[in-house]
Amino acid sequence: MNVPNELIALLKREKRFFIATHINPEGDALGSSIALSMALESMGKETLLYDRDPVPEFYRFLPGHERFSSSVSDLRSQISNLILLDCNEPERAGIDNVPIPYSAVIDHHETERDFGDIRWIEPLAPATGMMVYHLIKKLNVKITKDMATNLYAAIAIDTGTFRYSNTTPEVLRVCATLIDSGAEPASIAEAMYETWSEKRFKLLVSVLNTLEIVDGVAITYATKEMFKETGASPEDTENFSNFPRMMKSVNISAFFREMDDGYLKASLRSKGGTNVARIAEMFDGGGHRNAAGYKIKADLRTAKEELLKAISKK
Amino acid sequence: MNVPNELIALLKREKRFFIATHINPEGDALGSSIALSMALESMGKETLLYDRDPVPEFYRFLPGHERFSSSVSDLRSQISNLILLDCNEPERAGIDNVPIPYSAVIDHHETERDFGDIRWIEPLAPATGMMVYHLIKKLNVKITKDMATNLYAAIAIDTGTFRYSNTTPEVLRVCATLIDSGAEPASIAEAMYETWSEKRFKLLVSVLNTLEIVDGVAITYATKEMFKETGASPEDTENFSNFPRMMKSVNISAFFREMDDGYLKASLRSKGGTNVARIAEMFDGGGHRNAAGYKIKADLRTAKEELLKAISKK
Repeated sequence: MNVPNELIALLKREKRFFIATHINPEGDALGSSIALSMALESMGKETLLYDRDPVPEFYRFLPGHERFSSSVSDLRSQISNLILLDCNEPERAGIDNVPIPYSAVIDHHETERDFGDIRWIEPLAPATGMMVYHLIKKLNVKITKDMATNLYAAIAIDTGTFRYSNTTPEVLRVCATLIDSGAEPASIAEAMYETWSEKRFKLLVSVLNTLEIVDGVAITYATKEMFKETGASPEDTENFSNFPRMMKSVNISAFFREMDDGYLKASLRSKGGTNVARIAEMFDGGGHRNAAGYKIKADLRTAKEELLKAISKK
Repeated sequence: MNVPNELIALLKREKRFFIATHINPEGDALGSSIALSMALESMGKETLLYDRDPVPEFYRFLPGHERFSSSVSDLRSQISNLILLDCNEPERAGIDNVPIPYSAVIDHHETERDFGDIRWIEPLAPATGMMVYHLIKKLNVKITKDMATNLYAAIAIDTGTFRYSNTTPEVLRVCATLIDSGAEPASIAEAMYETWSEKRFKLLVSVLNTLEIVDGVAITYATKEMFKETGASPEDTENFSNFPRMMKSVNISAFFREMDDGYLKASLRSKGGTNVARIAEMFDGGGHRNAAGYKIKADLRTAKEELLKAISKK
């Protein structure tokens, strides 16, 4: 991975940086931003870490997460050197209406946009955390336990803790050095996977009770009633669509959630074969090959039928 | 890790080896035995791979699993140089009634027994697969894709695919070289975690419906009736006790399974704090700090009460 020299030069030369990442931030966005902020501050720089949305409860185990601010009184006066992480356009970070004098982009998502005075885009990098790791090494900054924990969590999230196909030998080698620097795999995994609320778990069980499997398509759903009964919230359903994938016979898992406006939100997950983004697009939704979603104004029965019809057409 | 010189000498000197591992074999036992068999055969040796029990369906993704034989017509004539893997006494491999002229033990379980002419026991090794990796390197055998897949799966199983506290930097470095040699993390993870039968999944859902949480202890159970309804079998419940650990409030998860003989089998799992082996011992069971079990002749209600009483005494 080649860290651009001009990025190194910028970080060494300037004194203040405004680090921003995308709205609805997840582990890679948060972990790599915090680690970069810590590294720059250890070089005597000032950083302001910004996310339009607050750090989700779920990620507050990341040391230094409190550095994030979601309310900056006057963005205009703060943004001089913008470092945009894990996304590549100001819109994604909710800062598109602010003049940006100078900017650097560090991201692993493919893009056709060309925002950024310095652009470092590595579509093959498994996580932005991997890029920030190399950047920090290149800056000759010693990786502390806190930086290591953030980078390890960032990389773990984006590789499904080393279960996805982006788990390259380099991912494991970098994570090995992060453990050397103090990251603790077991506590990070516990924080990521074993901190569900009882409400959330109960909702999951209710949802799994609705399971129906038709021609390799697993269908589950959550009604408004089920949210009321368990006390869980819509955000709690994140990841629910992954569970039926455990079954060998399941190629696609679809999870429907009743929304307040009469719509159903569908989350699709696939194993290997089918490109669920193509299916979501048939309902004006979108996503990736293995994870996609859409909204539909219909009752559950109709929504299921429409989905099965769409899948059979592919 | 220091591979004993006499073990290397034995493997180089002799021509035929009888490789055996423990009954009810899991991934580490199987993967490390198969990899060692392949390595020795690539040196021109003959090996016979033995397990008293057949390779579980679940592990038949391991390349070379068909090398395992569970019916050896005349054990007596076969066992000359025994290599005992992932266990350290012939009883554990179901070969205790056979004369054993010479034997080597390769294991990472702590033991007070002293069976074996050559004993290589590394209680700190995260998996027997790690030991076999070093052994193969020391034998100067090139690690093939098939060997790499077996060793990677062995290590992944025993470290919870890198989520347990035995995930050392060395684990990740070794697994990185195994990917270099052809192991595919995503297909191995899919084979390990996404090949459940529908019956098994349905039984899991029924079991999770029985969830009750008392003072941080999650209790679930499977009745004989539930096995009948879902068509699942007792082996299908492996790992069930881990699911309630997902909840932050749960410190101990206990899963009871009704057996045919009027007993209940209890599986205990803990997160951090409590040593569940100590609790299992109070019921004449045993196990490790975070995973233990016992049998009890009682109805479900009594068994639950007894367990909660035992936990409160700790």
